[in-house]
Amino acid sequence: MEHKTAMVIFQPSGRRGQVPIGITLVEASRLLGVDIEAPCGEHQVCGKCKVRIENGLFEKFGIRSSADHAGSFELAEDEILSREEKQDGCRLGCIATVQGDLLIYVPESSRAGKQVVSKAAREIDIELDPGVKQYTVKMEAPTLEDGLADFERVCQVLEKEYGLLSLDIDIYALRSLSSALRSGDWEITVSVWMDKEIICVRPGVDRIGYGFAIDIGTTTIAGYLCDLETGEVVDTLSMMNPQVKYGEDVVSRISYHMGNPDGLARMSSDVIKAINGLIDKAVAGSSTDDESDQDRSASLCIREEDIIDVAICSNTAMHHILLQLDPEPLGSIPFTPAIHHSISMKCRDLGIKTHPAANVFFLPSIAGYVGGDTIGVMLAETPHKQKPVQLIIDIGTNGELVLGNREKLLCSSCATGPALEGAQIEFGMRAAPGAIERVKIDPVTHDVDYKVIGRKVWKSYSAPEDMKTRGICGSGILDVVGELFLAGLVAKGGAFSPKAHESSRFRKNQETGYSEFVLAWAEETSIGTDIVINQKDIRQIQMAKASIYTGCKLMMQRMGITALDSIKIAGAFGTHVDNHLARVIGLIPDCLLETVTSVGNAAGDGCRAALLNREKRKEADQLWSLVTYIELTMEENFQGELVAATQFPHMVDEFVHLDDIP
Amino acid sequence: MEHKTAMVIFQPSGRRGQVPIGITLVEASRLLGVDIEAPCGEHQVCGKCKVRIENGLFEKFGIRSSADHAGSFELAEDEILSREEKQDGCRLGCIATVQGDLLIYVPESSRAGKQVVSKAAREIDIELDPGVKQYTVKMEAPTLEDGLADFERVCQVLEKEYGLLSLDIDIYALRSLSSALRSGDWEITVSVWMDKEIICVRPGVDRIGYGFAIDIGTTTIAGYLCDLETGEVVDTLSMMNPQVKYGEDVVSRISYHMGNPDGLARMSSDVIKAINGLIDKAVAGSSTDDESDQDRSASLCIREEDIIDVAICSNTAMHHILLQLDPEPLGSIPFTPAIHHSISMKCRDLGIKTHPAANVFFLPSIAGYVGGDTIGVMLAETPHKQKPVQLIIDIGTNGELVLGNREKLLCSSCATGPALEGAQIEFGMRAAPGAIERVKIDPVTHDVDYKVIGRKVWKSYSAPEDMKTRGICGSGILDVVGELFLAGLVAKGGAFSPKAHESSRFRKNQETGYSEFVLAWAEETSIGTDIVINQKDIRQIQMAKASIYTGCKLMMQRMGITALDSIKIAGAFGTHVDNHLARVIGLIPDCLLETVTSVGNAAGDGCRAALLNREKRKEADQLWSLVTYIELTMEENFQGELVAATQFPHMVDEFVHLDDIP
Repeated sequence: MEHKTAMVIFQPSGRRGQVPIGITLVEASRLLGVDIEAPCGEHQVCGKCKVRIENGLFEKFGIRSSADHAGSFELAEDEILSREEKQDGCRLGCIATVQGDLLIYVPESSRAGKQVVSKAAREIDIELDPGVKQYTVKMEAPTLEDGLADFERVCQVLEKEYGLLSLDIDIYALRSLSSALRSGDWEITVSVWMDKEIICVRPGVDRIGYGFAIDIGTTTIAGYLCDLETGEVVDTLSMMNPQVKYGEDVVSRISYHMGNPDGLARMSSDVIKAINGLIDKAVAGSSTDDESDQDRSASLCIREEDIIDVAICSNTAMHHILLQLDPEPLGSIPFTPAIHHSISMKCRDLGIKTHPAANVFFLPSIAGYVGGDTIGVMLAETPHKQKPVQLIIDIGTNGELVLGNREKLLCSSCATGPALEGAQIEFGMRAAPGAIERVKIDPVTHDVDYKVIGRKVWKSYSAPEDMKTRGICGSGILDVVGELFLAGLVAKGGAFSPKAHESSRFRKNQETGYSEFVLAWAEETSIGTDIVINQKDIRQIQMAKASIYTGCKLMMQRMGITALDSIKIAGAFGTHVDNHLARVIGLIPDCLLETVTSVGNAAGDGCRAALLNREKRKEADQLWSLVTYIELTMEENFQGELVAATQFPHMVDEFVHLDDIP
Repeated sequence: MEHKTAMVIFQPSGRRGQVPIGITLVEASRLLGVDIEAPCGEHQVCGKCKVRIENGLFEKFGIRSSADHAGSFELAEDEILSREEKQDGCRLGCIATVQGDLLIYVPESSRAGKQVVSKAAREIDIELDPGVKQYTVKMEAPTLEDGLADFERVCQVLEKEYGLLSLDIDIYALRSLSSALRSGDWEITVSVWMDKEIICVRPGVDRIGYGFAIDIGTTTIAGYLCDLETGEVVDTLSMMNPQVKYGEDVVSRISYHMGNPDGLARMSSDVIKAINGLIDKAVAGSSTDDESDQDRSASLCIREEDIIDVAICSNTAMHHILLQLDPEPLGSIPFTPAIHHSISMKCRDLGIKTHPAANVFFLPSIAGYVGGDTIGVMLAETPHKQKPVQLIIDIGTNGELVLGNREKLLCSSCATGPALEGAQIEFGMRAAPGAIERVKIDPVTHDVDYKVIGRKVWKSYSAPEDMKTRGICGSGILDVVGELFLAGLVAKGGAFSPKAHESSRFRKNQETGYSEFVLAWAEETSIGTDIVINQKDIRQIQMAKASIYTGCKLMMQRMGITALDSIKIAGAFGTHVDNHLARVIGLIPDCLLETVTSVGNAAGDGCRAALLNREKRKEADQLWSLVTYIELTMEENFQGELVAATQFPHMVDEFVHLDDIP
């Protein structure tokens, strides 16, 4: 019975504890609160969970760690790890198991760390009519002759002065009512949710009240703290979705749920904790005196209980997982969600740390793969209210498409895969400091110039050692592929062209077997190795762009149109996209360049609109039934179109034309 | 720092633990989960919290206990404890403090123990239209062509087949919806609350559903488990209100709240635990095979989650304390409640262990001292729907009066004090085994015959040692006083008459200074001492009956009537009352004996009606504004009337007549 557990220590975080013998290192990392990347959902294919076992006696911790304590090598590791890595003690965290005491080093590339996300709130026009409004009322004190109870006394005034009828009151508000009335000398400020329910009561005149709009992406969570009195965004916060450790895309998360009895509860709890983390940051941020880019809130002192309304949008799977609704039906035909309608419920029932009586509004879901985030996009861009025919492409870990106008609206989802977000790309990474985000390739010299996140100066103006490049993020990859194509280094079919073979940056990697093109030499990086894009990476991008392009084309066919009035590219990814290069590689259909706009995080904007305008909430519940969902994979010519779209398009007069539509 | 805590052991329960030095023994008993009576709210006046400190070394527990470890004697103890008690090591638990290790014996008379309560459900006519109804529906499975989500699919059928529109769904029900539909092959049974919200979903045909109606009295909590499909009461359960340890009446509880920062939370938690205890009993009771008086439920197997609706009635203070609404305003003029309206909320928000999505309905409160229990009485007796003028007297720890008919209704409350429930009476006790509940006194011999709870045979047919009498409960006290008066042993003014002085049972107690009359000799008791009624006890009863009588009289004056069509006596107390003796002592106004009926626990019946009939819920919310509350103490002639009413009435032809009403 003695050796049932072993001591495991993770470095550099220093987290340690006894864990059961036999579990994998990734499982051990979860138990000890260390986040190791597992984008493939621990399916032993992505190799992102690489860790190093340290050998030796570590007296500080009282353990002897040894590579032998991590179980024997398996075939999958042989394929993924290089010989040097193996000699260095590297293992895959999803394969190696705890067999004895271990000191494990988690390299930066394997850490599911904090990242920079560009999900700033745009200036959009929202008429202020928030879900929660505050009213200050004054009344006579009760007497023996006028013995009306406190609640009815307040209702009487609210009816008389504001026409509010048949109000309910949340038990938490009711608990503070009597003392607020008496300490406020019969003057109080009440917060009323949707003209229905009193959720907060404060003595005297006290109209502090904030709402929090949250956009939960598969990869990133963004929060917008809004002043409900002015509509102003007082703080924007974001963090990685901690569920990433269970898998990069929604399908891996659904299968994590199906394979783990407590998987759903665990993933839900992780995202709730993340939301509470954002609230903590918003609250803490508001109380500092630091001169920062959040200086508008620096003079405020916001408390948790000042957050009195919440709106959340997300894709359908994230929605189901957060609410602990079984996501399994989303994973198989006919991909049926548990519910379309918006959901209003108490934050406390989910453990969200706001005012205890605050409600949270979840935007409705259209279909299994088109969720509240797409409703949010529509609330922000209002295609259903306009005459011009719009195509909105929301690119996240999945791609969602909306096409139409006030007469007819179609939507669909396409499996772009995470390549456009930098995943499943050899040197791919998320939009974090050190990631290549813009690229230019000289068509003659084939020299590469690039810019990394976190550094304003391009490479050509920098000393190589100042770049500290770490990898390529989504927009960088798109740029690379477009530039390689424009420079003639990649052919229509996606293969490196004969011209590429002449470049000093081109080579064949003996270990991977793939042709590759060097973007950054080792000296420019912080990882000590050349950063390349290889043939396999280009294939991934081809698949992603083919998927989006095919979706757009099939939807236009369904709509019976051949031209578009405008194209909008949404998503955190969209803010960085070079529209020209997107057209060059055939990511988006043919149209005048002027009609293409990037609209940033439109889903988050729409979520904010629902927070700040109650008509938008009604609109949201009309939209899910107004939009026709098209399951693209069931369209007759889907496979053929998809294969054809993997090609890079013919270029005519610098413009790329959409294939003829029958 | 060493002696900051001490070990305290309570016997006979054996509960023990370390407690902080300096707290009182009653406080220590609470920390260790031992219930010591504190009817006066620890105001050092009632002497009910008597305990004995054991001296010596107790090796079993490793402590040395000593009287010195309980602090020094105080004046109040000198007054209350007899010399023998002091010699014996007795202390008052609310005065003595923990100064070192203690072994404390809690005598039976000081234990706030379990008791027998007679709150059986009466057969009343309730049309079955419960707040929660169950519907079984079958539907087509979704396809790619018909991709409607699960919730909307169910709503579609519920609308088509049952006309239910705009339904909400509780998150807990939504969580089970998808798997219920799939495991039930697209047939499910849903429970719908008030035609508004789906609260429970089960696969296939499964119409099990129970409701729990709870009557929370100051002293007793009664629960009625009802089958929502048949309306049948399948189990009746009751227990003492554990808050009794904070004080016998509502005023002591309010002051306990005002004197203790966590008092409200503690009292609320105690009553919630008691409710959960009743639910546990109902659930456990249903799974046994015992032949018992609950044999109707013996074959059922009810689970916590089968309880899908709850209704609660109580007086306003109990209502506020349970809901953690500040009861302080109830304690001072103008005695304003926080709310009149009924409250519907989730059981989970209070920690009541039912189905997690079940709602609880609290009956409305009329005024600070006339609460949902009186609304319950009205729902059961429906004076507001009848032409005859009724007077309903609900006697509990407080007395509530309702007078009127369908044209006009008055109500009021009178401070009866707990005497009619056996408290503040020297040998008073609650309606528990061993309590004298009926008494007859021979007018010639002055011999006493009596009956105790738990024993069917009267004393005159029993061997003295078989009686094991412990004290006198409410109805017994009323009987004693009535019989003493009828036997001429007590005069009109309430004093023992000269005739009494001749009785061998009469004596003057040298210690208390009061005249007393022996009801049971020591040999008949289990407490080893004569059980008597003394002059002070008779004064208490005089005050209580004067209070009720005055209330009735002033209300009749207000109503402008001199005669009543009927009198109903409600309350657990009421079921035992001898109407004749009640009239003899002037508890109730003059009327034909035939018009006086005991209606038992009418409050509980009304609560059950609200559970089983949704119209009754609406009626409840109309009633609180329909009834005019009269604050009796503010009536012009209140004091005079009260003093006059303390007299026992003139007797004319064996009937007692109401004083002339001007």
